[in-house]
Amino acid sequence: MDMKRAFYIGRFQPFHLGHYSVITSIAKEVDELIIGIGSAQRTHESNNPFTAGERVMMIRHALEDIDVHFYALPIDDIQQNPIWVSYVTSRTPPFDTAYTNNPLVIELFEEAGISVKQPPMYHREQHSGTEIRRRMLADEEWKHLVPDAVADVIDEIDGVRRLKRVSGTDGFDY
Amino acid sequence: MDMKRAFYIGRFQPFHLGHYSVITSIAKEVDELIIGIGSAQRTHESNNPFTAGERVMMIRHALEDIDVHFYALPIDDIQQNPIWVSYVTSRTPPFDTAYTNNPLVIELFEEAGISVKQPPMYHREQHSGTEIRRRMLADEEWKHLVPDAVADVIDEIDGVRRLKRVSGTDGFDY
Amino acid sequence: MDMKRAFYIGRFQPFHLGHYSVITSIAKEVDELIIGIGSAQRTHESNNPFTAGERVMMIRHALEDIDVHFYALPIDDIQQNPIWVSYVTSRTPPFDTAYTNNPLVIELFEEAGISVKQPPMYHREQHSGTEIRRRMLADEEWKHLVPDAVADVIDEIDGVRRLKRVSGTDGFDY
Amino acid sequence: MDMKRAFYIGRFQPFHLGHYSVITSIAKEVDELIIGIGSAQRTHESNNPFTAGERVMMIRHALEDIDVHFYALPIDDIQQNPIWVSYVTSRTPPFDTAYTNNPLVIELFEEAGISVKQPPMYHREQHSGTEIRRRMLADEEWKHLVPDAVADVIDEIDGVRRLKRVSGTDGFDY
Amino acid sequence: MDMKRAFYIGRFQPFHLGHYSVITSIAKEVDELIIGIGSAQRTHESNNPFTAGERVMMIRHALEDIDVHFYALPIDDIQQNPIWVSYVTSRTPPFDTAYTNNPLVIELFEEAGISVKQPPMYHREQHSGTEIRRRMLADEEWKHLVPDAVADVIDEIDGVRRLKRVSGTDGFDY
Amino acid sequence: MDMKRAFYIGRFQPFHLGHYSVITSIAKEVDELIIGIGSAQRTHESNNPFTAGERVMMIRHALEDIDVHFYALPIDDIQQNPIWVSYVTSRTPPFDTAYTNNPLVIELFEEAGISVKQPPMYHREQHSGTEIRRRMLADEEWKHLVPDAVADVIDEIDGVRRLKRVSGTDGFDY
Repeated sequence: MDMKRAFYIGRFQPFHLGHYSVITSIAKEVDELIIGIGSAQRTHESNNPFTAGERVMMIRHALEDIDVHFYALPIDDIQQNPIWVSYVTSRTPPFDTAYTNNPLVIELFEEAGISVKQPPMYHREQHSGTEIRRRMLADEEWKHLVPDAVADVIDEIDGVRRLKRVSGTDGFDY
Repeated sequence: MDMKRAFYIGRFQPFHLGHYSVITSIAKEVDELIIGIGSAQRTHESNNPFTAGERVMMIRHALEDIDVHFYALPIDDIQQNPIWVSYVTSRTPPFDTAYTNNPLVIELFEEAGISVKQPPMYHREQHSGTEIRRRMLADEEWKHLVPDAVADVIDEIDGVRRLKRVSGTDGFDY
Repeated sequence: MDMKRAFYIGRFQPFHLGHYSVITSIAKEVDELIIGIGSAQRTHESNNPFTAGERVMMIRHALEDIDVHFYALPIDDIQQNPIWVSYVTSRTPPFDTAYTNNPLVIELFEEAGISVKQPPMYHREQHSGTEIRRRMLADEEWKHLVPDAVADVIDEIDGVRRLKRVSGTDGFDY
Repeated sequence: MDMKRAFYIGRFQPFHLGHYSVITSIAKEVDELIIGIGSAQRTHESNNPFTAGERVMMIRHALEDIDVHFYALPIDDIQQNPIWVSYVTSRTPPFDTAYTNNPLVIELFEEAGISVKQPPMYHREQHSGTEIRRRMLADEEWKHLVPDAVADVIDEIDGVRRLKRVSGTDGFDY
Repeated sequence: MDMKRAFYIGRFQPFHLGHYSVITSIAKEVDELIIGIGSAQRTHESNNPFTAGERVMMIRHALEDIDVHFYALPIDDIQQNPIWVSYVTSRTPPFDTAYTNNPLVIELFEEAGISVKQPPMYHREQHSGTEIRRRMLADEEWKHLVPDAVADVIDEIDGVRRLKRVSGTDGFDY
Repeated sequence: MDMKRAFYIGRFQPFHLGHYSVITSIAKEVDELIIGIGSAQRTHESNNPFTAGERVMMIRHALEDIDVHFYALPIDDIQQNPIWVSYVTSRTPPFDTAYTNNPLVIELFEEAGISVKQPPMYHREQHSGTEIRRRMLADEEWKHLVPDAVADVIDEIDGVRRLKRVSGTDGFDY
């Protein structure tokens, strides 16, 4: 089982076409791709409306036809930075390379001796979770910015309604 | 023991006449009322000067003569929103209805299949913990905004002095 | 609000007549009694079948007619012994005396400068949670060992059935 | 996206042919199957030698050719039983039915209103993680008890050597 | 072993000459000094670039020749204020006096019955971690603001490079 | 600051002459020695009577005259084995070699790429914490088994009395 495996992490709130294009690009270079779903424990917040399980389902269906083995796995935020890498590696198949543009993640992986590559950037203005969530709240078009399967998942879970509900609050602000 | 029980949650920093009027209003509709003391673990902060135990004591004495069985129970903040409801229900007697105006709490209870009612609003400007704490810091009158028993508890624990002490700081800002 | 308050702690799985007799005895010496529900987070186990909320409800109803102000408050197990006392005191009204026969609890309270009294012992063989749970599992009589209100609560929550269900397992033993 | 989804949980230390036969059996009844990897946080112990990530990899490859969409997702032990169900459901795609023989898990799912089916039992003596780990330690044959892909994963991570190392100890017994 | 011991706490990001002058001043009044390294768990952040272990090493070497027994011990942030004091006292040798200017820390120690003294203030503008980190980022002189041994430690761990790396990010901002 | 640093871990309940002889032996091979106080959070138990702070104090005084720079630092138990190494390295100065005979610790360090040496064994029957605690409980001689400074610390904190108190209990066994 001698394989080239890579790790790529995002929050995927929701998974969109920008993520999709990065992943298809990385997929050409590896045998297997581990997709880490960051801030997995966060959900029902205006910036994080979807659960880890819902995000897993989005990714699973959006990448149905992609030509690489992939894993979609929740990664919780760990408050102590230096142990984050070992937390990740204990919850994922072994991998050789991490793809990320986040400076902290780069630093942590490199201090741990794991090689880092910067993935190609996608057009950030449109293909961003922030923009998509803004459109959902404003009842503007958003489905063309995500894979069809993701739109289906968000419909199944009535995700736009939930986003609107939780956006009217600042957490447990009794 | 077939009873109509309801759940009402607040931070009660401190318990004031606005809370009191909501509770007397809900009390007419139920046999027993569970009063959740939210953010129970927070104390000795400028927005949360009182401990959970002190807030329990305020409520117990303020509602001495009210004509309903009630429970006053600490509810800690749980960082993962979707498990908050099961945390609450495991630490309270069983209840049918939750009374709250907080959009996140409404969403979480409704997703869990618990019915939610919005309690009557009280006059928010005066009857607010924020205003009462501001007055305490400014040495203005505040005791007419809380039940007498609450003023007694705050005196017993020397609460205004504590509020002044912890307001001069931003947590563990060494 | 100058009152003599005491603290008494038990697991109350379930609350039984032994607990009741200790509490009525302590009640004669104090103005208010804080009843700590220990191991509050444990439930759905063969030794701990009832939730903290269910135990609160048992105590509340069993002591309906007792002639002392009391509080029934959940106390979680805290893994670090020396901080347990400050955890307790932050979640309870202030108290002068702790009633307990547990050597560790005695040591911790005394190191923290809180005075400890040993409550009168009740007849341990019959009046024990262990014996009552054994009888529940064996379909023997147990209701005469608890206050009537406790039997009512256990009926309401279908507690014996739950105990039987969870007794057939050793936790999450997949 | 109207699908019949089921949830099945095990520890998979390691994933073996007994698990495989249960899963192929459940697979006939559902559109998608969520495989929960229980006690995900446990690893490097004599009863739990493999990390969550390694177990994900075993399952992913063992089920390569199975004719159902499946998810393999880590599920940590949650110390407070009543919140376990909401923890699971927040980290998995929505599902209708849970397959389990564990009495506690049955009770918890049923109290939460999720329907439970008991999966077919496999021949427990041979097809058990305990037996397989015993054979690994004794240098007896074990590879015929697991899917080929699982044996490959265990070889890749040098899993038998690790099991032997950690079996000589009782945790952090300095 | 009848000794006068004191406790002094800081974040020491990094340890600088202001800290040094306070400590030499306190040292004259006590037999032993416990130096608490606050927010010990924070590291790899723009305001907290150094690990607890690195800060221990800075202090150990900077105070090589000081004429008092000292301990440098990590103190994690504890989210529940009232248990912080017992957390500190369980992880340090017993002490009589705490030296601090932080109002919350003063309040917490005094409520716990520990006497507090305010240490002499040093010249805050120059001798501040904030200023030193700003200079590091701007490639300005900073080594004259810290003991020589601290500059050596920061060189050994390549600390300025790390600070620059993690300053370009806002945590796990995927 | 080019130094050879090593890490050695024990529970030190209490620190005894066996530990002392191992440390003097390791000290000859290194410039600095980091002594990890394992299970730091455990205290007030029959097997772990002393706090982390008390154990730090024992070590500090017992090694007063030893000819090597040393650090004595609390190390909490971390429930997830694979992150333990990164927890340790984030809370200690950087080190090259770990000295331990514990098979799990050996495995974890070696998987993390840190070299491990086995320290010389001392005469285990007499020089063991278990034996010393047994003697304390039985009022037999024990002071000749520990450095004089350790006996002084145990006297200062009235440690034998505490051990006797907490040995009569099985934790929070209400």
